[in-house]
Amino acid sequence: MRKIGLSEIEDIALGAALLGSGGGGDPYIGKLMAIGAVKECGEVTMLDPEEVPDDALIVPIAMMGAPTVLCEKAINGGEYRALYDMVRSFYGKDVYAFMPIEAGGVNSMLPIAAAARIGIPLVDVDGMGRAFPELQMVTFTIGGVNATPMALTDEKGNTVIFKTITNKWTEELARAVTMSCGGAVSVSMYAVDGRTLKKYGVRNIVSRSLRLGKALREIKKAEEKDTEKTFLSVTGGFKLFKGKIVDVLRETRGAFNFGRVVLEGIGECKGRSAYVEFQNENLMCSVDGKIVATVPDLIALVDTGTYVPVPTDALKYGKRVLVVGLECFPLWRSKEGLDLVGPRYFGLETDYIPIEQRCKEAGV
Amino acid sequence: MRKIGLSEIEDIALGAALLGSGGGGDPYIGKLMAIGAVKECGEVTMLDPEEVPDDALIVPIAMMGAPTVLCEKAINGGEYRALYDMVRSFYGKDVYAFMPIEAGGVNSMLPIAAAARIGIPLVDVDGMGRAFPELQMVTFTIGGVNATPMALTDEKGNTVIFKTITNKWTEELARAVTMSCGGAVSVSMYAVDGRTLKKYGVRNIVSRSLRLGKALREIKKAEEKDTEKTFLSVTGGFKLFKGKIVDVLRETRGAFNFGRVVLEGIGECKGRSAYVEFQNENLMCSVDGKIVATVPDLIALVDTGTYVPVPTDALKYGKRVLVVGLECFPLWRSKEGLDLVGPRYFGLETDYIPIEQRCKEAGV
Repeated sequence: MRKIGLSEIEDIALGAALLGSGGGGDPYIGKLMAIGAVKECGEVTMLDPEEVPDDALIVPIAMMGAPTVLCEKAINGGEYRALYDMVRSFYGKDVYAFMPIEAGGVNSMLPIAAAARIGIPLVDVDGMGRAFPELQMVTFTIGGVNATPMALTDEKGNTVIFKTITNKWTEELARAVTMSCGGAVSVSMYAVDGRTLKKYGVRNIVSRSLRLGKALREIKKAEEKDTEKTFLSVTGGFKLFKGKIVDVLRETRGAFNFGRVVLEGIGECKGRSAYVEFQNENLMCSVDGKIVATVPDLIALVDTGTYVPVPTDALKYGKRVLVVGLECFPLWRSKEGLDLVGPRYFGLETDYIPIEQRCKEAGV
Repeated sequence: MRKIGLSEIEDIALGAALLGSGGGGDPYIGKLMAIGAVKECGEVTMLDPEEVPDDALIVPIAMMGAPTVLCEKAINGGEYRALYDMVRSFYGKDVYAFMPIEAGGVNSMLPIAAAARIGIPLVDVDGMGRAFPELQMVTFTIGGVNATPMALTDEKGNTVIFKTITNKWTEELARAVTMSCGGAVSVSMYAVDGRTLKKYGVRNIVSRSLRLGKALREIKKAEEKDTEKTFLSVTGGFKLFKGKIVDVLRETRGAFNFGRVVLEGIGECKGRSAYVEFQNENLMCSVDGKIVATVPDLIALVDTGTYVPVPTDALKYGKRVLVVGLECFPLWRSKEGLDLVGPRYFGLETDYIPIEQRCKEAGV
């Protein structure tokens, strides 16, 4: 058990944005929501999964929709209470704690804001260990957990409860409502008991974000010479490319941001080129025509000067970025994991090869 | 109180198809559902609204979607129980009786099937006195009743509960889910207490359908000479046109059937032409370029030989039809009524003029 106050929020937002792999929302927006709630209602207690009773009801809180919409269509603050009331009345049981469903600039922050405002703890766990675009893409799906009953609310006060036959149907129906509500909504799904949480959750992901964020902040301060080496060492990341953004193709379709960012090499990558494809999150990185990383491994673009992660909705011509890859949560590399979030699910014409192997082969 | 058995079902389906104004689903499909349920579970008790206690919970049951889809995508029979359970658990109260929300070939029949299968009565009332395409278009909206909590289920077993800030938002969100579920679903909304039912409902619409259906059946049998005159007299209808269908434009968009049917005059209308525009239901009839009827008045196309109503999804080249207009429920002619279902809401560039006045001016 530890407390999350204002300085922890800053670090978690920064670290989670890196794990968000380009998605999960803008960390600046996310931070503001959590800071506002903690300033008004006090610090949040964060529990280790081991501290959660087996029969306690733990409820994820998240925003669903296209990141480009998330950053312009804010929440009104009443959403947490609406979701809390819906879930509680559906289960006829008190909610013991909130948790994030994914790591990301907004979706790591919302559960903190919700925990502060409702006055219950946060659990140091999530269901992805990164961010993914579709809602069936959580470790709990592999554990046979239903996404539903799922509660959804928009900032206007419309609410919807879904109960579906598969988690893919939840995605279908909730996505349709999200689009009709204007492209972004607040949701709660995959409510789990403590037992399931401990078995299938990605443990200690919030504290990992916190540590990562702190390390990134210290690199910025340090003004050392080889900050890039320090960055790669603290994140455990593979350097995939360094370049200037020369083109961004972007399409908002079905409440997703689809696109591709094209990079022209700089520094030691001069003369080479690369591109990264994304669907909310970065899906694949190709350097000089050769794939060097794919989902479910993490691909993040960070500013070459500050090491601040650049989400897919903030990609802009001229920005200089380091493309870094991180190993995903081991469960994603199983057969069931790859069926859910492997490259072929996203329409990429390649089998999954672990990033460490791809990088070794490519000599990265 | 009276009983609804197999022969009543035949007549109600036929009469309701006329009041359905081209929408509300195919009476043949609807009839099969109700007949199957009554054969299996016994006759249904129909209550007059006056027999309903003021605090009883009365629940409409309907299908939502495009009629062209309704007639191919059947229900599995478990939908009534799913809707019943959802509504009962939401209100924490037993459902006293079902009711139709609109008159139409399918939507007058489903509540009968549901009442038979669940074993509760049906109330002789609805919320339109005809069929309309969008779900906020009910007399209860004028009475300030919320469409939600609304329960929705598809034949696969997905269920959704909506609670929205306006009835227009219910339409938006439920329509989006309907499309994702394949274009047609079973729903329950506008659950009302007995008091509201008696104040805003369109009373005795089921028995009106029954009387109309019986009269139509007797015309068919009679083989009189001037059956057309009898038809107009028993329905109280205005004869708008008689012609052969020479073109049908049809587009399925947003889980609606939009379109226009073009008629070439026959008999005493020879040499003249007319067209009828529809959105699931018939919206407007124009003869020789002059509008002779618009929503909210009823416009129905019936077979010139049998007087069987032809729903918009069954319009076909070569069919000979009589176009008949009926006066709508008086509440629809109020300012609030016309805001909801007047011609301008549907994008028609005309004010509402009552059908009896239009026909008088046009000399029909």
